[in-house]
Amino acid sequence: MGLYPKIVEALIAKLRKLPGVGPRSAERIVNFLLAQPENEVITLAENIKAVKHQVRLCQRCFNLTEETLCSICQDNNRKNLLCVVEQVKDLVVLEKAGFPGVYHVLGGSLSPLEQVGPEEIRVAPLVERLKQEKFEEVIIATNPTQEGENTAAYLSRILKTMGIKHSRIACGLPVGGEIEYADIQTLKKSLEGRKTL
Amino acid sequence: MGLYPKIVEALIAKLRKLPGVGPRSAERIVNFLLAQPENEVITLAENIKAVKHQVRLCQRCFNLTEETLCSICQDNNRKNLLCVVEQVKDLVVLEKAGFPGVYHVLGGSLSPLEQVGPEEIRVAPLVERLKQEKFEEVIIATNPTQEGENTAAYLSRILKTMGIKHSRIACGLPVGGEIEYADIQTLKKSLEGRKTL
Repeated sequence: MGLYPKIVEALIAKLRKLPGVGPRSAERIVNFLLAQPENEVITLAENIKAVKHQVRLCQRCFNLTEETLCSICQDNNRKNLLCVVEQVKDLVVLEKAGFPGVYHVLGGSLSPLEQVGPEEIRVAPLVERLKQEKFEEVIIATNPTQEGENTAAYLSRILKTMGIKHSRIACGLPVGGEIEYADIQTLKKSLEGRKTL
Repeated sequence: MGLYPKIVEALIAKLRKLPGVGPRSAERIVNFLLAQPENEVITLAENIKAVKHQVRLCQRCFNLTEETLCSICQDNNRKNLLCVVEQVKDLVVLEKAGFPGVYHVLGGSLSPLEQVGPEEIRVAPLVERLKQEKFEEVIIATNPTQEGENTAAYLSRILKTMGIKHSRIACGLPVGGEIEYADIQTLKKSLEGRKTL
């Protein structure tokens, strides 16, 4: 609309692209920032840049980290279980539910409609890792959505060929839902009730 | 919780302080930023800083501007009407409703409970301005809340003493609501139906 100074309009436009931020909240955020002490705002901006510069993916499991390996991969007290998830946010909520093993973050799920095949997600690094590390069991914790189920089935075929014991988390999760939004108790049930494929 | 790298947790904590951003959306925003191309994120951070550095208040009306006077105060085609509002966001929505005059942004409303008196909002600069500029009419467009009504009554007493014709926007607005959330038609009605105090 051009009712704010040009640079303010530019920031509003950028903020609107953030998930969960509509035009109204973008305006509110800018007004909030303008009312904040300068050093607070500078710190926020620097923090955004620092996250982008300093945060990388764990070389082993593709979790977020500031080092070569993430804190979970560096932890020697983890059980010898591997949990395969779509996204880091899924790993975070499984951690909250107390999963005792380690993870592999695929970075997505198979979706032929959106041209996401096994090459687009981290299937090859998973297979490579499974050739080197031995796990008691691999738990496939992709979302119980169409794409997540397809991905689980695809991984199951590979794991069967490799002779690796594996399971799928139980559907205590609402079908069609996403792990990110599950409550901790449902997730715990879902982990306990997993069945070998 | 410490489940993300420290710097990510720090950014999530900062984002949660923004209006309308809960813990879940803060997480989503960070994950979104991590997935964005680096230059996009740097631009966002720089834009935040630039807004804070370059945007100031109009010397005449206290609207946001990158110059000495805002674009509205620089516009010679404005009618000789002065609209007094609490916040810049109120000015923005009145502009969208097509108000043809100019503005004065108080920067708040009187609130004895929160120790906001006339000294804390821009009453003195308004009085000073009214001594120098002559307006056909001053329209008091503070929110129809307790504080906004008190502020309107306070300003009305001053304007009466100064012999200046003034009015209050009509309550087409829902009582207890805020101008920021009004729809344009209601606001137009509210401007048309204003009554001289």
